[in-house]
Amino acid sequence: MPNPKKMEKINLRTNNRIELIDITDKVQAIIAKTKIKDGICFLFCPHTTAGLTINENADPSVQRDITNTLNKLVPEGAGYAHSEGNADSHIKSSLFGSSLTKSRQAPRLGLGESERVRSNFEEERIRGKLYAWR
Amino acid sequence: MPNPKKMEKINLRTNNRIELIDITDKVQAIIAKTKIKDGICFLFCPHTTAGLTINENADPSVQRDITNTLNKLVPEGAGYAHSEGNADSHIKSSLFGSSLTKSRQAPRLGLGESERVRSNFEEERIRGKLYAWR
Amino acid sequence: MPNPKKMEKINLRTNNRIELIDITDKVQAIIAKTKIKDGICFLFCPHTTAGLTINENADPSVQRDITNTLNKLVPEGAGYAHSEGNADSHIKSSLFGSSLTKSRQAPRLGLGESERVRSNFEEERIRGKLYAWR
Repeated sequence: MPNPKKMEKINLRTNNRIELIDITDKVQAIIAKTKIKDGICFLFCPHTTAGLTINENADPSVQRDITNTLNKLVPEGAGYAHSEGNADSHIKSSLFGSSLTKSRQAPRLGLGESERVRSNFEEERIRGKLYAWR
Repeated sequence: MPNPKKMEKINLRTNNRIELIDITDKVQAIIAKTKIKDGICFLFCPHTTAGLTINENADPSVQRDITNTLNKLVPEGAGYAHSEGNADSHIKSSLFGSSLTKSRQAPRLGLGESERVRSNFEEERIRGKLYAWR
Repeated sequence: MPNPKKMEKINLRTNNRIELIDITDKVQAIIAKTKIKDGICFLFCPHTTAGLTINENADPSVQRDITNTLNKLVPEGAGYAHSEGNADSHIKSSLFGSSLTKSRQAPRLGLGESERVRSNFEEERIRGKLYAWR
């Protein structure tokens, strides 16, 4: 049985500049391994061009609406000072936030059918790391 | 005395499409019941069309400014793909976030006079559930 | 050795209406004092005109891009109802959020070279208080 006080890493690879990646199953798998029935799950995303959110996954159009609206509010290449071309992703990251506190109920994360944890708006195809406490 | 490790539910009914509901007293009541003097309070909102925030309540105009600005940034019916008519609420939910970590000092939540915890932007008159860990 | 269950205060003074203040060293110093090697750090900002975020600090232009974009999205003096002149800061506070949950690995906070915790968009030169749980 894993140590419930130890942090687990989730490695991700993004495919698009801006996207939402469903990490619910990866988080659930870590929770299931701990055999803890009731508790709190801490999620932390260490990348400053990515963030964490929980939102609907039943209808994939919600994902498109979220990313489209984020791109309207914080467009790519809108005259930013930062020279790396990813200033919009840094700003989106701060708007969504990099930490989440969630009820953890093994084997489920305590999410309804349509709610999923997402990692989002990576600006490039990087190998991301998401930290899930358990 | 309630089990401080168990999650408590707060049930809410919204009255308007977009609104901020003050849940401070409900959270305080749960904290007071635990008889714990010092600790951390975790709040989680399981609805993907609602979120949690702490902001000023002394002057109700702050609430109006927050909801008006959110409606300007993410308007209702702005050509979203999601067919349920509540895409804006899903997006607002991700911007505000669904979890809060707060100092809990019985019998007060550790908030000043003018700060209150809010649940916000429910898009319809639903019976909401807010989860407060204790 | 400090009590790891007790909350520590970080006092800050802001110099500009809207700014990001790097509080990483102050948080690290508190973590180092606890002598705890592995755990979770809770940060809470009790001011409703300020918020918390983690973002890049290697290139200071990211900070400017963040504050400039926030000012575009939520401008000062845009016809708000709140009469104190700081409605935009209240709204920015709700967008960024007032709590952060972070891995704490003594003596480091678990942040990479370029990531720093920030307290931001204070609207006036106040003596702020940031609460760091340990």
